[in-house]
Amino acid sequence: MIDLFGGHPETTPLSELGDVQFLDTTLRDGEQAPGVSLTPDEKARIARGLDRAAIDVIEAGSACTGPGERETISRVTDLDLDATVTSFCRGIKNDIDLAMDCDVDGINLVVPASDRHITQKVGTSHEANVQTTAELVEYAKDHDLWVEVIGEDGSRADVDYLEDLMAASLDAGADRVCYADTVGHATPDRTLEIVSRLTDLGPTSTHTHDDLGLAVTNALVSVAAGADLVHGTINGIGERAGNVALEEVAIALDHGYGIEAMDLTEVHDLAQLVAKLTGIPLAPNKAVVGQNAFTHESGIHTDGTLKDDAMYEPYPPEKVGRERRLALGKHAGRAGIKAALDEHGFDLSGDDIDTVVSRVKEIGDRGKRVTDADLLTIAEEVEGRDRERRVELLDLTAVSGVTPPTASVRLEVEGEERENAATGSGPVDAAMNAAEEALSHSADASLESYHVDAITGGTDAVVTVEIEMSRGDDAVTVTASDSDITRASVSAMVDAMDRLVAADDDQLVADD
Amino acid sequence: MIDLFGGHPETTPLSELGDVQFLDTTLRDGEQAPGVSLTPDEKARIARGLDRAAIDVIEAGSACTGPGERETISRVTDLDLDATVTSFCRGIKNDIDLAMDCDVDGINLVVPASDRHITQKVGTSHEANVQTTAELVEYAKDHDLWVEVIGEDGSRADVDYLEDLMAASLDAGADRVCYADTVGHATPDRTLEIVSRLTDLGPTSTHTHDDLGLAVTNALVSVAAGADLVHGTINGIGERAGNVALEEVAIALDHGYGIEAMDLTEVHDLAQLVAKLTGIPLAPNKAVVGQNAFTHESGIHTDGTLKDDAMYEPYPPEKVGRERRLALGKHAGRAGIKAALDEHGFDLSGDDIDTVVSRVKEIGDRGKRVTDADLLTIAEEVEGRDRERRVELLDLTAVSGVTPPTASVRLEVEGEERENAATGSGPVDAAMNAAEEALSHSADASLESYHVDAITGGTDAVVTVEIEMSRGDDAVTVTASDSDITRASVSAMVDAMDRLVAADDDQLVADD
Repeated sequence: MIDLFGGHPETTPLSELGDVQFLDTTLRDGEQAPGVSLTPDEKARIARGLDRAAIDVIEAGSACTGPGERETISRVTDLDLDATVTSFCRGIKNDIDLAMDCDVDGINLVVPASDRHITQKVGTSHEANVQTTAELVEYAKDHDLWVEVIGEDGSRADVDYLEDLMAASLDAGADRVCYADTVGHATPDRTLEIVSRLTDLGPTSTHTHDDLGLAVTNALVSVAAGADLVHGTINGIGERAGNVALEEVAIALDHGYGIEAMDLTEVHDLAQLVAKLTGIPLAPNKAVVGQNAFTHESGIHTDGTLKDDAMYEPYPPEKVGRERRLALGKHAGRAGIKAALDEHGFDLSGDDIDTVVSRVKEIGDRGKRVTDADLLTIAEEVEGRDRERRVELLDLTAVSGVTPPTASVRLEVEGEERENAATGSGPVDAAMNAAEEALSHSADASLESYHVDAITGGTDAVVTVEIEMSRGDDAVTVTASDSDITRASVSAMVDAMDRLVAADDDQLVADD
Repeated sequence: MIDLFGGHPETTPLSELGDVQFLDTTLRDGEQAPGVSLTPDEKARIARGLDRAAIDVIEAGSACTGPGERETISRVTDLDLDATVTSFCRGIKNDIDLAMDCDVDGINLVVPASDRHITQKVGTSHEANVQTTAELVEYAKDHDLWVEVIGEDGSRADVDYLEDLMAASLDAGADRVCYADTVGHATPDRTLEIVSRLTDLGPTSTHTHDDLGLAVTNALVSVAAGADLVHGTINGIGERAGNVALEEVAIALDHGYGIEAMDLTEVHDLAQLVAKLTGIPLAPNKAVVGQNAFTHESGIHTDGTLKDDAMYEPYPPEKVGRERRLALGKHAGRAGIKAALDEHGFDLSGDDIDTVVSRVKEIGDRGKRVTDADLLTIAEEVEGRDRERRVELLDLTAVSGVTPPTASVRLEVEGEERENAATGSGPVDAAMNAAEEALSHSADASLESYHVDAITGGTDAVVTVEIEMSRGDDAVTVTASDSDITRASVSAMVDAMDRLVAADDDQLVADD
C-alpha cells in the first residue's frame, strides 16, 4: 500500500504540468441522475454553453438508450462546435453503429474491468473481454472515430488485469484509456497507484465520483499522476452522489497551480442553466456556483471585507463571472450595517447605529432573514421619521378551481382606493396580475424575480415568498410569509411597491 | 514548493494513524451562513443529535454575538452532553468572560495569523499579537477552560510567524492549536507544509473551507500530517461555500482507512434535521446524505444492482442509516422495469415488458419523472385491462384572501357523487382537507408526505406537487403538475386515492 499523499516516484508537481483538458459528461452521466431528462433543444443549449466555456470534449449521451436519445445527440453534433462530440457505448458493436448514426466525432467505449463487472454483470471471461475490446477498438478506428476506452469499475479492478486490458486497447489503436472510479470507492492513494501505471502505457483520462466526498481529490491526484483529460459534470450532477464538479477542478487548478482548463467566467451562467434544465437544484453553499459562495453576513467577515475585498475570499468573484454580496442577519456587525444604511441614503451615527444593529440582530435571533425592507423600517423608526405607508393592501380574494383562475384586490395607493380584478394561470398569478395592474397607474414597476422555497411537511406549512421589484433605477427585495401562498405573494408585492413609491421622494431605496 | 501528493517526510499512512476526533461547528460557523439563525430550542435539538453521533467537541456559538446567542449557548451547556461544549472567542478578554457566563467547557480562541488580518483587519503588530494571545490563553487556563488557539487565515500566513504564534500559545498553556484555511485558499501541498510544522509543536486541529472544492482533500491531508481533531459542519454549511462536511470526512476515513470518527448511522437523520432547521437545502447529489446518493435509475446500473447490491455502490446505504432506491425514467432498462412490475403484482413477459419499457422511456424523453402511478397505468393498458377510475375529481373551488380560507370539492367515488367543504390555513390546505374528508367515508387513507419543488421564474410557473399516501399496508407516490397549486395538490390526492381504493381488490399497489 502506498502512503496517502506520501512519496510516489511518478507524481509531478502540478505547477510543472502542461495542458489539462476537460471532458464534460453532463449530457450523459449527468443526465443519468434520477429524474433528469433533457430534450434535444435543452441538450443543444447546454452544449453551446459548454463550447463557449472552452470544454474540449462533450459526451453528448448514450446512443443505445433509444431513438429519442439519438435525436438529442444528433442535435448536438449538428451544432458544429469546436469541442469533440462523443457518445457513450457499451462493449457491443451495435452501440458503436448507433453512435455513428448520430454522426459523433468519437466514442467512450465502456468495458468491464473489475472481476465483479466482468463475471457477474457482463458474464464473460477476462480473456474474452480483452479480445472483444481490442476488436471493438479496431472496428471504431476503422471508421475514423476518436476512441477512449473506459475500464468500468477500474478502482476495484485487479490492477495487473486493468493494465493488460488497457495496453491491449492502446495496441489496437485507442487514442486514450480512462481510469474510472465508477462507484466512487477509491482513496487518493489507490487512485495514485492505478493512474500512475496507466499513464506509463499511454494518454490517460480520469473519471471520478463523489460518494466519499473525494471526487475532486481523486481528479487532482490523477492529474498529478499524469492524467491529462478530466471527466466531470457541471454542478457535479450524475449517478448517486454525482460526478466530480468540473467548475471545482477548474478553480483548484487555476487558483492553486495556474493551470487554465476551461473559461471560468462562463461557469456561473452555465451552472444556472444546468440547474434549471435538469431540475437538480444547487445547494446555496456549493463551491464556485452556489448562491452564497460570495456572500458575507457575519460581522467579522463583513467588517473585514469592507476594509479589503480579499480579507475573506480566496479569489475575486469576477473570476467566475459573479459579484460579491453583503447580507444582514443575526451575526451582522456595526460596520456592515453602517455600510448598508449608507447605501440606502441614511446618515445615522453613534447610538442610533447601535440601536439598528441590535434590532437587526433581534430579527435574526427569531430565525428570520433580514431584507432591505426590514432594515429601512428599523432605520426610519430609529430616526424618528413618522413614515406613513404609501401603498397598502385592503382586501384580496382569489378563486382557484374555476376557469380561468380569477382574483380581485383592493389597495390604497397614496390615499386613493383602487380596485382591480384579473385572471391568470393560477390563483397566485391572477392575484399578482390584479395587484400589478392596480399599481401600474402610479408606477411602472416590474417584478424582477419571484421565488418560493420548496414546501415540505404538510399542506398547512408557512410559505415564504421572496420577490425583487424594480422601478427605474431603484430595486428592492422583500419577503412575506403566510400559510396562504396567494396572500404571501400579494403582500410581498404591495410592500415592495410601498418602498418603491417612497423612493422617488427620499431616495430610501438603493440604486441598482 | 512541495510536490502535490509527492513525498513529505512527516506524513503517516492514514491506515497507521490512531484516533481522529471531530469538532462540529454547525452551531457556530454553520450558523454564520447567510440567512441562517437558530433559536435556543433548535440549537439544543441539533446538539443532542451531534452528541448521539458521538461528536467529540461541539462549538455551540459565539458568546460575543449578543444576549440571544448567549441564551442559545447556555441551552446547549445545560444539556449535560458527553461532548465538550465550546464558544468561539475573538482575541478579546471580554469575549472569554462572556463565554464563561454561558458555562462552556472550553473556548476556540481566534487570533489573526496572516499579515492581512494582523495589520489591516485587527490593526496590531506581529509582536503585540503574540503577546496578547499568550496572555489570553493564560487567562482562560486560569479559569480552567479547555483552550484551542486558531490562527485565523493561517493558510495565507507567513509560516515562520504562524509557528512562533502557535508555539507561544502552547507555551502559555493552550491545549491545542488549529490550522485554519479560513478563506478556502489552500492547495493540498500548502496544507501539508503548514500542518506538518504545527504538529511538530503540539496537538493540532484543522479547519478547512470548500471555496476551491478542496475542503475534504485538505482535511485528509491534515490528518495524514498528524492533525487529530477535524473541524467541520453537518452538510458542509458555513460561510460562503461552507466548511468541510463532517459526514464526508467520516465516510472517507471509515471506508478508505478503517478509522471511525463518528457514528455514521446517525448522520442521515442529523443531516435532515440541520437542513430543515437552517433552511439550507441539500442538493440531491450531495455525498452520503443527498436524496439521490443511493438511488439508481439508469438501466445498466439498475440491472447490475439487481444482480449484486455492491455492483454500483462503494458501501451499503445502511452504513449511513439509509436505504437503496431504484427509480424509473428515461434511462430505465428492462431488468429494472421488470423488477418494479413484479413488486406491483404484474406478471408480464416478453414483448409486453418491451412495450412497457418503451412507454416509460417515452415519458422520460418528455423530461418527466415516472411515478408508481404512471407505471401502473402503462402496465394496465399493456395487459389490456379496461380499468375504470374508482375516484375522480369533478369540481374544485378554493377561495383565498377570505378568513378562514375555504374550499369545496365534488368527487365521484366508486360511482357515487360526494360533495364537501372545509376550511384550512390557506386555500391548498382547505382544498386538501375538503378532499380528505370527502374520501374518508370510503377509505381511512392518510397523507404521508407533501412536497412542492422550489418555485422560481414567474408567478405563472407550472408547479409540481409530489405526495405519498398510505392506506393500511399500501402506499403510493403520485405527482401532479399545474400552474394552479391548489388544483395540482388536489389532483395528486385524488389520483393517489384512486390507486389505493383499487389496491384492495387487486393488489396493484406495493406493500409498504
